[in-house]
Amino acid sequence: MKALEEKILQEGEVVDGDILKVDGFVNHQVDALLMEEIGKDMAEHFKGQGITKVFTIESSGIAPALFTAKELGVPLVILKKQQTADSLKTEVWQTEVVSYTKDTSYRLTLAKNYISDEDHVLIVDDFLANGEAATGAIRLIRKAHATVAGLGVLIEKAFQPGREKLESQGIHVYAQASIKAFENGKVVF
Amino acid sequence: MKALEEKILQEGEVVDGDILKVDGFVNHQVDALLMEEIGKDMAEHFKGQGITKVFTIESSGIAPALFTAKELGVPLVILKKQQTADSLKTEVWQTEVVSYTKDTSYRLTLAKNYISDEDHVLIVDDFLANGEAATGAIRLIRKAHATVAGLGVLIEKAFQPGREKLESQGIHVYAQASIKAFENGKVVF
Repeated sequence: MKALEEKILQEGEVVDGDILKVDGFVNHQVDALLMEEIGKDMAEHFKGQGITKVFTIESSGIAPALFTAKELGVPLVILKKQQTADSLKTEVWQTEVVSYTKDTSYRLTLAKNYISDEDHVLIVDDFLANGEAATGAIRLIRKAHATVAGLGVLIEKAFQPGREKLESQGIHVYAQASIKAFENGKVVF
Repeated sequence: MKALEEKILQEGEVVDGDILKVDGFVNHQVDALLMEEIGKDMAEHFKGQGITKVFTIESSGIAPALFTAKELGVPLVILKKQQTADSLKTEVWQTEVVSYTKDTSYRLTLAKNYISDEDHVLIVDDFLANGEAATGAIRLIRKAHATVAGLGVLIEKAFQPGREKLESQGIHVYAQASIKAFENGKVVF
C-alpha cells in the first residue's frame, strides 16, 4: 500500500538496527485519515469472504482494525492483554502469549459470548514479525471452533519467520507494507 | 445522545449494583458504526474551538476518540498506561494515576514530541466517574504548557464526583449519556 510505505519512509524511525518505530502515526500518535485508508484497503482485500468479525490485539491494532470492521460492516473484538477483575465474572477463553521481541508474556483473553462456532474471523494487527500475537489469537478462535479468514497487518518484517509459521498452518497473510531488510538505518521494501 | 442511551438500555449490564458493563459495544466488542456516530456527535459539540489534537487513555477510549479526531481533522494521541521499554529512549512526560474504581495505579506516559505549548487538546474517554484518568491527562497537558479544550465522555456517572472536580478546575465536560442512578439493576438517565 503506497501511502503507508511513503509514510514509513518519511516518518518511521529505525532504532537499534532492527526495530521500526511508527509512534508518530500508528502507535502513540495516530493519523486517523491514514487509518481510514488502511481500513478501506484491508476490507477491499478481504471482502466477499463471509467475514463476521474483526479481531485485534490490545492496543496498537485497534485503530486500523476499527476502520476495517466499519468498512466490512461487522463488529470489532479487542482481545485483552490483561485479565481485568471483571473478566473473571464472565466465561472466557484464554491463552498465554510469549513475545520474544519484547521479552514479555501476557494472557490473551476473549469473553466467550463474543465468539461462536459460526464466526469467520479476520485478525488485524499493526506488525507481523515472529507471529506470536497472531498465533495466540488463532488459538483462541480455534478454541471456540470458529474459523480464521486470515491475518491482515500494516507492516510485515519479511525477514522474520511470522508469515512462514502462519502460512504453514493454512492462514492467509496480507501485509500492506512488507519490509525486506533494514540497511544502514533505512527501510528496504 | 439518544442512540447511545438506547444501546445502554438494551445491551448494558449493571453488575454489583453500581458497575455498568458495556463490553458488548464499547470495551471488548466494539460497534464501529455506533463509534462513528459518537465521534461525529463529539466533534459537533467541540468544533470551532481551535482543537489541534485529541487525546485518549489506553485503551477503551481509542475507538470513539479515533472517530472524533477524524471528524475534527486532527491527530489522535494515545496516552500509554505502561512504560514500554522503547519509551525510555524517548523524552516523556509522566504522571501517576490512582484508580479507586479499579483499585490499581499506573503511570500515564506521553512522548514529548507529540505535544507542544501551542496545542489545544480535547480529551475523549469512555467513562467519567471519579475523574482520575482525566485529571492525569490534564496534568500531562499542563506539564507541556498546552491547553485543555475540554473532556468528552460517552458515559458519565453523575452521582460520582468526576464532573465537579473537573469543572472546579475550569474544564468543560460533555457527557453523551449521563447516568443519574442505578435502581434495582437498571440504569436511570
